[in-house]
Amino acid sequence: MRKTIIAMLLALAAFPAVAATEHPCLLLTRSGVSTIKASLGTVPMFDASVAELLSNADAALGREVCVPVPKDGGGGYTHEKHKLNYFDMYNCGVAWQLTGKKEYALKVKEILMAYAELYPTLGYHGLGLSGTPGRLFWQTLNESVWLVHTSQAYDCIWDTLTKKERKYLETTLFRPYADFVMNGTEDNRANQRMFNTLNNHATWANTAVGMIAMVMGDRELLEKALYGTDLSGERGFIRQLDVLISPDGYFNEGAYYQRYAIWPFVMFAQCLDHNRPDLGIFSYRDGIILKAVDTLLQMAYDGVFMRFNDALEKGYTAQELISAVDIAYNADKADKQLLSVARDYQHKVVVTDAGYAVAKAIRDGEAEPLKLRSCVLRDGGDGTRGAVAVLRPAREDLDAAILFKATSHGLSHGHYDRLNFAYYDSGNEVVTDYGASRFLNIEAKYKGHYTRENKTYAQSTIAHNTLVADCRNQFGGKMAVAEESHPEITGSALGGSVQMVSAREDKAYPGIVMERFLFYAEVPFLQYPLIMDLLRATSDSPHTYDYPVHYNGHMISLSVPYTRAMDTMHALGTSDGYQHLWVEAEAAGGRGKTTYTWLTGRKMYSLSTATTPSTKVFLARTGAADPDFNLRSEPMYLIRESSAGNHLFASCLETHGKYDIDIEQSDNLESSCTAVEILENDPGCISVFFGFAGDKALTLTVWPAGEKVLYEINYDN
Amino acid sequence: MRKTIIAMLLALAAFPAVAATEHPCLLLTRSGVSTIKASLGTVPMFDASVAELLSNADAALGREVCVPVPKDGGGGYTHEKHKLNYFDMYNCGVAWQLTGKKEYALKVKEILMAYAELYPTLGYHGLGLSGTPGRLFWQTLNESVWLVHTSQAYDCIWDTLTKKERKYLETTLFRPYADFVMNGTEDNRANQRMFNTLNNHATWANTAVGMIAMVMGDRELLEKALYGTDLSGERGFIRQLDVLISPDGYFNEGAYYQRYAIWPFVMFAQCLDHNRPDLGIFSYRDGIILKAVDTLLQMAYDGVFMRFNDALEKGYTAQELISAVDIAYNADKADKQLLSVARDYQHKVVVTDAGYAVAKAIRDGEAEPLKLRSCVLRDGGDGTRGAVAVLRPAREDLDAAILFKATSHGLSHGHYDRLNFAYYDSGNEVVTDYGASRFLNIEAKYKGHYTRENKTYAQSTIAHNTLVADCRNQFGGKMAVAEESHPEITGSALGGSVQMVSAREDKAYPGIVMERFLFYAEVPFLQYPLIMDLLRATSDSPHTYDYPVHYNGHMISLSVPYTRAMDTMHALGTSDGYQHLWVEAEAAGGRGKTTYTWLTGRKMYSLSTATTPSTKVFLARTGAADPDFNLRSEPMYLIRESSAGNHLFASCLETHGKYDIDIEQSDNLESSCTAVEILENDPGCISVFFGFAGDKALTLTVWPAGEKVLYEINYDN
Repeated sequence: MRKTIIAMLLALAAFPAVAATEHPCLLLTRSGVSTIKASLGTVPMFDASVAELLSNADAALGREVCVPVPKDGGGGYTHEKHKLNYFDMYNCGVAWQLTGKKEYALKVKEILMAYAELYPTLGYHGLGLSGTPGRLFWQTLNESVWLVHTSQAYDCIWDTLTKKERKYLETTLFRPYADFVMNGTEDNRANQRMFNTLNNHATWANTAVGMIAMVMGDRELLEKALYGTDLSGERGFIRQLDVLISPDGYFNEGAYYQRYAIWPFVMFAQCLDHNRPDLGIFSYRDGIILKAVDTLLQMAYDGVFMRFNDALEKGYTAQELISAVDIAYNADKADKQLLSVARDYQHKVVVTDAGYAVAKAIRDGEAEPLKLRSCVLRDGGDGTRGAVAVLRPAREDLDAAILFKATSHGLSHGHYDRLNFAYYDSGNEVVTDYGASRFLNIEAKYKGHYTRENKTYAQSTIAHNTLVADCRNQFGGKMAVAEESHPEITGSALGGSVQMVSAREDKAYPGIVMERFLFYAEVPFLQYPLIMDLLRATSDSPHTYDYPVHYNGHMISLSVPYTRAMDTMHALGTSDGYQHLWVEAEAAGGRGKTTYTWLTGRKMYSLSTATTPSTKVFLARTGAADPDFNLRSEPMYLIRESSAGNHLFASCLETHGKYDIDIEQSDNLESSCTAVEILENDPGCISVFFGFAGDKALTLTVWPAGEKVLYEINYDN
Repeated sequence: MRKTIIAMLLALAAFPAVAATEHPCLLLTRSGVSTIKASLGTVPMFDASVAELLSNADAALGREVCVPVPKDGGGGYTHEKHKLNYFDMYNCGVAWQLTGKKEYALKVKEILMAYAELYPTLGYHGLGLSGTPGRLFWQTLNESVWLVHTSQAYDCIWDTLTKKERKYLETTLFRPYADFVMNGTEDNRANQRMFNTLNNHATWANTAVGMIAMVMGDRELLEKALYGTDLSGERGFIRQLDVLISPDGYFNEGAYYQRYAIWPFVMFAQCLDHNRPDLGIFSYRDGIILKAVDTLLQMAYDGVFMRFNDALEKGYTAQELISAVDIAYNADKADKQLLSVARDYQHKVVVTDAGYAVAKAIRDGEAEPLKLRSCVLRDGGDGTRGAVAVLRPAREDLDAAILFKATSHGLSHGHYDRLNFAYYDSGNEVVTDYGASRFLNIEAKYKGHYTRENKTYAQSTIAHNTLVADCRNQFGGKMAVAEESHPEITGSALGGSVQMVSAREDKAYPGIVMERFLFYAEVPFLQYPLIMDLLRATSDSPHTYDYPVHYNGHMISLSVPYTRAMDTMHALGTSDGYQHLWVEAEAAGGRGKTTYTWLTGRKMYSLSTATTPSTKVFLARTGAADPDFNLRSEPMYLIRESSAGNHLFASCLETHGKYDIDIEQSDNLESSCTAVEILENDPGCISVFFGFAGDKALTLTVWPAGEKVLYEINYDN
């Protein structure tokens, strides 16, 4: 790896970079503009995107220039205004290039001049909420995003400015701005430390500085963006590509932040491809940038990113993905499935060379269907820190996915949820992950930041579908401890009629080994594939083990009698997330097995778990200990085994039934599982019998002890 | 009215009905089949519907004939099997007509013969759940539906049967079956009473008997279906058209049951139009059947029927609506907007003459957009029993609707919700109506019937957005009392920039006069139209008045400090629906006004109400006293005024903000209402001042006392 960088540095010395001699030169190029202008009116999706951009640019023309003294946090007036300003400048800049209407260029200039006046007067933002505070915004991250957009606007109107004007803007605004993002201030080097770190905020900072460097033709500044302020290559954009993305294209904070992280990666890469083709950036590390785009697309269900770690509902339509899909296609025009993402989900492209290429290929009928596949996506720069797995049905008529999470912690956005899983079917979340507790941009909700309950509930172990021991968070809820280790994927089988993935985790709870074996199998006598879940805890000392299943839908039946909270309801516990759960009902487990059925959309889902009458069963709902109504009200099913050393939670989850409300027809609405019996639970062998209606049965046997997990399913029908 | 009937009877005597001499003769006719067969492969939507029908017919061919002894209720095995059988017969019958493949006809015959063997052995259904029990099904209603489908199947294969076979089937099955539906049995005349009643079950029974009569060419039977068993015209299908549908095309049980009721009306009418064109059925009573179809389409939002009274989620895609739209268009080909309902929502047609006409017109590009309008739909056969009103925005860029309910009770499916309202916007229910508590066809949930909680909660007054006095249901929750009276619409203004509707109700609570004035107004300084709601209670004696607002979305802020249930939560009351509400938080009202803001989809909704510190405010959620988990968990906001004789709840509901998660831009997320002040509240005049940010204001003045409510809005901006 080090060798590659040195080779690059040498290459760099041997082939001096071309300073931009023509503008625009970033995502939109001068030759791109020529092609685009010649084709206006002939490429429908591009025309529509141009029309939208022009309409936004026209709206910007109608606004008085206003560059307020920074004051507010996310969602607040000055924050949103500075965001709007960079969108306005960007839109007007591109509009000028496409239409040649002078007023667009003048509007950009006018706003830039206002910033050039304001900027030198600013100290750090007053809010003091971030360890890396900005000037225009409360955190430097937003400062970088401003520069990424504004660089493009400046690039677009470059030719309209006099040399003197450019010098003024660069001296007063852009160089000090870039220097602040890169170095912070003499009395506070937080930004410099951040610029030289290897994380997503740093990627943004590198990209912002690199882009304005290319516009200004500042070779040295660009080198710092690429290789760190000390030019060592130990940090900077290129090193980020080595470290932040796994060999399978996975970014270690999860899909939601990979969506955000991908944006500077693809934008900077596109600009480098235009200005520094010698770097061959899209081929770097076996095409890691393109791989990261593909991986991100794979971690979605129905175009929405699967929710794990801190995550809100975002998907293919997010602005970052529109850029990513356009740029990835432009870099590798053989990947025609990207076109269907643009056509079927995004319905728009970015008004750049890349966006034009996408829209034109769609017009020419080149789109191919997006192929979603089962996959194991390794975590860690070298791919050794666990993985997230996605299982998808082999049958083409089904629309389902299972997510299994056995990655490393995922930095500050990670959740304490090792060996968690989620299930999606027929367009719905079925077994759910709460995701993040945050009301992005909503000032009234903790100023749009992550709420307190994000830490106390959303990140807690009980908020997930995995083992909780002794009602405590994994790793005691300590991120530093969680970051030290990672689970191991112990087996996987993808793509056939029996798919599986398994993992082992022995650090989450000291003295307890957790193993989970998740199967997704076509069963000849069942309507839909069966999920079988073996979750095992092994310990020398007794523990209380909780097996929570969060679901979306309405309770239909529980196979055992239960006591319902009628006029008074209490919280399930007092800490580690349990304080946030209302106990709606409790029950003793059934002799043999307990089955819980719920309705989601037009199908039934039945979870049958091996239990005994000493098993406790709870139906709970989020919302307790939530003084500010930050939590969504969501239901959960919980199975508890007390005073156990070793315990195997053996379950199957049936998808069944047809519930057609339009013609009022229904069938197969009841679970057909009649028995779940643990035949064997030894270190070297687990064997579970699942019985079904009509004297059907299957036995699942797993041998977990070898190099790789072995398994067998025997049918009895 | 009586005159019309007599004229008809005379007409009837003068022009003897043509007994069907050719088959099929019901919804599908012999000449229709010829046209259809000649056009197969040229009308895409029809071809797709034929393909679906043939695929269902082929599935039926693959099934063993099984006609089980009736045992189960809705959702249970025998119930669903007998339903499947009539669908199978129907599909195979039509398939035979279209393809001429003998096996389809044979399958129908085989199933019919099995029924002919089973039927004579049956007594009343064993379940004993209905006052009008059936034989194949637990209630005669389903018995009628079976006959409606099976008549068509029999009609389709008529020509393939020998005279002897037909005689056998008619003697053993169809005549006894029709007789049972029409007359019941000697020891139980419940069915006869029902057949001669004027309600929806009777419409089904009339239709079923009428259809089999037409197939068998039985003139007398058809007369009984049309004019009652005594042929008086005081009952029977024609009389239903006079009584059950209001002059505005409204069926008094509400949209959900109008959907169900419309089906026999349109089917029987279509068959009559084919066999008894002399009746001019589609012109009867000024085209009342077509008007009822149009009215039903108007009572929907985003293609889903607005939920009031007992209602589940159903809409334009329901099988009944597909029939209704096809038949209505076939009867009046000038109504081209029906075509867009079929094209944009239903995506299918019925495989009949009417369905073919629709599909062909769509292919020929004749569809026109569905025009949804503001309307007041009068209730009652003569239109004097109140009304339901729908207000829709005048601005074309908005997608919103307000429902205001001031109808009569609506028989057994009515709710105690006089002067209730609901609000829909941007594709979401915003201010919601719970609808019905029922899990249709789901055996595990009270056998698919209305749950106990339907009566104890869903029908209760507190489950709605209207006045509750002294925490009691309107009319003491007694249907018989509620049926005696109806509210009065006192004013309305539709379609302009200020729309309104108002009503008065003085029987719901003895000694209390309720008045509600609901405005929907474009306000120059607000982003979206403002809803203003004046709900007034007038009484000589003190009462506790509750003003509940059920909403869909997430709590964002309440303008006053509140106490949140943290680790224990209690029910709000002990009866009349209050026992089902958990108190999540309580507060004292603000001095002047209290504002509550929630987020639904990508917009904010803020309700500001005039309050004082002695006002009580509750945030509550359904789910208490619900032993079987029959209730959905839904939030509600409640304002309570205690010890008041006269009280005016004066509120405005702002729709505001843009919350674009894709590009993380937001603005106008906070309520701009700064004041709600009641200036005057006299019998003859109500005047309320609404203040808004930026020193804007408006004053709404209403003069409710005259013949018709007068009003004025004065802006101060």
